[in-house]
Amino acid sequence: MTVSEKLNLTHNNSPGVPRLGLPSYNWWGEALHGVASAPGVNFSDSGDWSYATSYPQAITMAASFDDDLYYAIGNAISTEARAYNNANRSGLDYWTPDINPFRDPRWGRGQETPGEDTYVVKRYIDNLVTGLQGGRNPEPYKIIATCKHFAAYDLEGWQGNNRYGFNAIVTTQELSEFYMQPFQQCARDTKVGSIMCSYNAVNGVPACANSYNIDSILRGHWNWTADENYITSDCTAIQNMFTDHHAFDTRQQTVAAALNSGVDVDCGFYNPTYLPSALAMGLIQESALDRALLRLYSGLIKAGYFDPPDTPWRSLTWENVSTPEAEGLALKVAEEGIVLLKNDGTLPLAPPEDRNMTLLLAGGWINATTQLQGNYAGPARTLISPWMALQNVSNIELIVVQWYESPMIRAIDTQADAILWIDATNEAAAEGEDRNTIQWDNLQIDAVEMLATLGRPLIVAHMGEQVDDSAFFSNPNVSSVVWAGYPGMLGGEALINVITGKVAPAARMPVTQYPVDYIHQVAMTDMNLRPNPQTGNPGRTYKWFDNATVEFGYGLHYTNFTTAINSPSNSSFDINALVSACDFATYSHIDQCPFRPSGASSSSVTINVTNTGTTGSDFVGLAFISGEYGPTPRPLKSLVAYQRLFGIEPGSSQTANLNITLGSLSRYDENGNQILYPGSYSLLVDVPTQTTWDFELTGSEYMMDEWPQPQ
Amino acid sequence: MTVSEKLNLTHNNSPGVPRLGLPSYNWWGEALHGVASAPGVNFSDSGDWSYATSYPQAITMAASFDDDLYYAIGNAISTEARAYNNANRSGLDYWTPDINPFRDPRWGRGQETPGEDTYVVKRYIDNLVTGLQGGRNPEPYKIIATCKHFAAYDLEGWQGNNRYGFNAIVTTQELSEFYMQPFQQCARDTKVGSIMCSYNAVNGVPACANSYNIDSILRGHWNWTADENYITSDCTAIQNMFTDHHAFDTRQQTVAAALNSGVDVDCGFYNPTYLPSALAMGLIQESALDRALLRLYSGLIKAGYFDPPDTPWRSLTWENVSTPEAEGLALKVAEEGIVLLKNDGTLPLAPPEDRNMTLLLAGGWINATTQLQGNYAGPARTLISPWMALQNVSNIELIVVQWYESPMIRAIDTQADAILWIDATNEAAAEGEDRNTIQWDNLQIDAVEMLATLGRPLIVAHMGEQVDDSAFFSNPNVSSVVWAGYPGMLGGEALINVITGKVAPAARMPVTQYPVDYIHQVAMTDMNLRPNPQTGNPGRTYKWFDNATVEFGYGLHYTNFTTAINSPSNSSFDINALVSACDFATYSHIDQCPFRPSGASSSSVTINVTNTGTTGSDFVGLAFISGEYGPTPRPLKSLVAYQRLFGIEPGSSQTANLNITLGSLSRYDENGNQILYPGSYSLLVDVPTQTTWDFELTGSEYMMDEWPQPQ
Repeated sequence: MTVSEKLNLTHNNSPGVPRLGLPSYNWWGEALHGVASAPGVNFSDSGDWSYATSYPQAITMAASFDDDLYYAIGNAISTEARAYNNANRSGLDYWTPDINPFRDPRWGRGQETPGEDTYVVKRYIDNLVTGLQGGRNPEPYKIIATCKHFAAYDLEGWQGNNRYGFNAIVTTQELSEFYMQPFQQCARDTKVGSIMCSYNAVNGVPACANSYNIDSILRGHWNWTADENYITSDCTAIQNMFTDHHAFDTRQQTVAAALNSGVDVDCGFYNPTYLPSALAMGLIQESALDRALLRLYSGLIKAGYFDPPDTPWRSLTWENVSTPEAEGLALKVAEEGIVLLKNDGTLPLAPPEDRNMTLLLAGGWINATTQLQGNYAGPARTLISPWMALQNVSNIELIVVQWYESPMIRAIDTQADAILWIDATNEAAAEGEDRNTIQWDNLQIDAVEMLATLGRPLIVAHMGEQVDDSAFFSNPNVSSVVWAGYPGMLGGEALINVITGKVAPAARMPVTQYPVDYIHQVAMTDMNLRPNPQTGNPGRTYKWFDNATVEFGYGLHYTNFTTAINSPSNSSFDINALVSACDFATYSHIDQCPFRPSGASSSSVTINVTNTGTTGSDFVGLAFISGEYGPTPRPLKSLVAYQRLFGIEPGSSQTANLNITLGSLSRYDENGNQILYPGSYSLLVDVPTQTTWDFELTGSEYMMDEWPQPQ
Repeated sequence: MTVSEKLNLTHNNSPGVPRLGLPSYNWWGEALHGVASAPGVNFSDSGDWSYATSYPQAITMAASFDDDLYYAIGNAISTEARAYNNANRSGLDYWTPDINPFRDPRWGRGQETPGEDTYVVKRYIDNLVTGLQGGRNPEPYKIIATCKHFAAYDLEGWQGNNRYGFNAIVTTQELSEFYMQPFQQCARDTKVGSIMCSYNAVNGVPACANSYNIDSILRGHWNWTADENYITSDCTAIQNMFTDHHAFDTRQQTVAAALNSGVDVDCGFYNPTYLPSALAMGLIQESALDRALLRLYSGLIKAGYFDPPDTPWRSLTWENVSTPEAEGLALKVAEEGIVLLKNDGTLPLAPPEDRNMTLLLAGGWINATTQLQGNYAGPARTLISPWMALQNVSNIELIVVQWYESPMIRAIDTQADAILWIDATNEAAAEGEDRNTIQWDNLQIDAVEMLATLGRPLIVAHMGEQVDDSAFFSNPNVSSVVWAGYPGMLGGEALINVITGKVAPAARMPVTQYPVDYIHQVAMTDMNLRPNPQTGNPGRTYKWFDNATVEFGYGLHYTNFTTAINSPSNSSFDINALVSACDFATYSHIDQCPFRPSGASSSSVTINVTNTGTTGSDFVGLAFISGEYGPTPRPLKSLVAYQRLFGIEPGSSQTANLNITLGSLSRYDENGNQILYPGSYSLLVDVPTQTTWDFELTGSEYMMDEWPQPQ
């Protein structure tokens, strides 16, 4: 391969080397919640290969708190991705998942993530990426996943601050404890094949030339150094280092900095345009080029790109795309991801045999189809809106109110038995643009208030982004509120299945629902999570903000549950003993070691969950830790374990295993070191807390992870 | 008609009165630059009635400075609108034109207007509306035009300020001099059939219940009181008075206030929902309902709505829609509206017989189609992008660069003879949302700068909204810049016709192009036009802001012109004599009377325009007044007349008649009174000024129009 041929391969839209039979390859595939539209994915206009299963958006997936489901989604997506690749319609690498924690409710791409909590984000990564890649370190990869955006990327466009040039100022403590945790999971533990560096700078250095992030942390501290571990830039991110960050004097210095920092492929055209002259100027060595290409093509080799047709995954075809099983999974994910926020008993509606009702259907999303998908979607075989779904429900007559008709007149005239209002904020969240409000339009509030005066049961289905539902919670004539986010191709069916009681809701909020004025208290550009009276920052996420409209982890059921902790035999633990008990043959890192309060041979903590009501239902057991330990300020609480239990029948109990690790008991000091601290701890079960178990850690602090310091 | 039947007719989607044979009618038609998509316009999906001629957006029309063209467009649109009505596919009233002056470059709907200058706006109204309505007070109306949005509406959504609840604080002086001038033209002079009241409040009172605006000014001072003169609300604007302005305690008081203020029809559902109970409560009288319905149906009667098939306009059919003539007009408007901003001689390209060139085509709008239309568009028979148009040009080979390819590599490799970059700002202007920047993206600037290093002629076609072109003007390797706005269905063809020299550009800027940092100096919510050192407001529009990147009225040609004023015989004029000379048999209002400096029997001022170059071209004669007269601060200058001259051949001259009126010489005092002041005046011809004529007015001030004062 000549130098010139190598230089041609340095961007996403690679021409290959025809002379050597190396085919062209577009590294840009997308598959966030199903194989999606992207330059490297070729859907046909109709017929075969014109669609793929379109699962709910990540934020709705996350609300299920179901690890096995995350894995199943990843596995199902990669099956379809492989089929597309076999038809020469896509590559073998996909730029999913999006794992920046959802820091601020205005973020235009928060919907792409599994929410605000790093523990949930890490569980999501471990399960989803393992499903996508076909294992934790499989041979071959089923597909190559790409964890993005590395790092501290969570601002699009806000009051003149633009993602292309934004400089995220992050403390070392919160960099380690929050912003980097998802990437540690990807790189160190789940062994993701690829990482994408982001547009923004972190503490003054653009992410795609940030040697502290890339060398010291990612490749150094986490040892993400397999032959096939490559980094791609976000699209135009290398160019943005010149145009927006003004980090380098020349374009040649810019591309050289990215390559020398270990960014292996440019989504853009700066590399092939300016690396030739950078090489001529001596700004890069040919060996750096070789290193990048070796990583990239090692990735493709490990994904079986050059393997013959009889090798794994090569037999998948169009018959394996959007199968009834895959679409059934899409429905199940949506059903598991719908959160019940308020209910006076109106929901579920009476069963078919007892109802003969007229339902008034109103609101802007009653016939939503593509809106149900959210962004980074692909074409779906079908898209089922709530209205379409209701037409298949027996014993419900519909009155449908379209915009600019008067729902009130129609409702009065027709004596509807109940009202279902389905809508989302009119200010769409979008890539490139953050939201300016987190409230319903006054016209929407007015519509609901008008409907609420009619004296009929009124159900609000809150779709899409979080907006403050206070007005609905405080209005006694709003009977029920559900939040369904972006429930995907069969999202309307899932919503109606929950409302009619075909499925009982058990999801929990993967984010905080903030009050309207929250966004006036803290700038989007303020990356700090901890409250700061001097700047007015009231704190971010449930760990640091205590005035939520709806708390992270909240969610109601159609029945009642009681929870009881099976109290461990001990309640005081010596830190040295905990550390000594860790089996390093099983766990590579001490933070992964289980906390076993009843002894080394026992399981971790378990809770008994009993359905005391009359409806069978799933239940998500959630456990938080709160306490007096480690540096101040201390978080209000932190999620440390969850398990979704399935189909608990009335009067029955099930046991949830809470797999608490030593890492979950740790805190991070100002230098980002992860430390086990002596102090008093409480385990809090459920939201709001139903039951607690207090214990203490004694002895000396133990340094679990010494964080590399910035220079 | 029963009261209940009357109440049903109070909103845009009127059910009619079937019992009496009164058909349903949707008042909501749109036709801003061609019959457009709207609830009251029914296009079919394909075949006949599936499209209409789609003219350039208003801002591009305005750049032509061609009064006859505005009339021709209005006349052509109303012909197609009538054809649609004859097919029972639309009503006879249309909510066009949008005439709020373009106050701030961020405004999301500025493109819908003819720009920032009230004189241009008034000429546009007088010609376009007369074309739409079929005359100044015709019988029947061809269609009913609706001047919107009354008044001081020019903010969508900006930093939490929302059009639905925005309170525009406007001085009486600028209300009279600027914000109300277009509506005076519509109501008092052009006799428009209908007016739309706006979302915002003006000085604390919502526009749709603002009796000062509606009663004192519109119906009182301007005597807009014909039987058929009705007011419609903007859509949901009545509801917004309750939900966003919180102007009334109850919904019944809200609808009563609108009806009693003289708003005759609600675009929304508040009227039919709450007027019944408002009537029962005694908040409205049935006579107020009658008054509204009489106005509305008088309008339809005057439009011949109930007339038999043999009456005027009833014979128009699908054969009269999107005819070659109409589409030819759409092309001509676009050609007349393209402004040449920079040219080193690269443009026009060599004539076909002399060229055999390769053109590199780059930028995000090279294949723009629907984007060429701008908002409030309808479906068009065809949409011709620049790329499509270039394929029909002889002796030009194309190299087309798509996104994420490297234009530089391609250009170097292929040795293109010239480069054409076609793009618009990525931050689209939109209804409901104002822009946050008035600059090109750094990536766009970078693309042009890269292309500029190649040493080939580089032409920039700046499309869409104004953004600061300084970087292109200051770069000596950017050869030429044109601004084409939104040039409509054949916009790509028009652009290429200008670039290849098939048509010579002669348009002028209808707005100021502001420098990038302008928007950081003044809030969108600051309605003041005059500079204010205390708030930092640097002044708005060319009348008050003197640091433009491109001045209002600027525009280059492919040839050179000289201009000479035919100096009037006098240069000093007694105000009383000017007033006495006015022929009130001809002119209803003194501000309309011509200023005849060479005597009562002469024409107004004329200028000779000579083409001293080698290319035939149109030329827009522009005349401004500047001077020391009237209250301080004084505007830098004010446009008082223009005339577009056609096809001035090299070496030839033509004469432009500048129809200056006494109104054009007036100023407005702090109370909004229009006054003729003694003082020194200068007539300035062209931009930048080429020639001037100084004169003075002597004697006493003369009150031309005493403005009604707010209570």
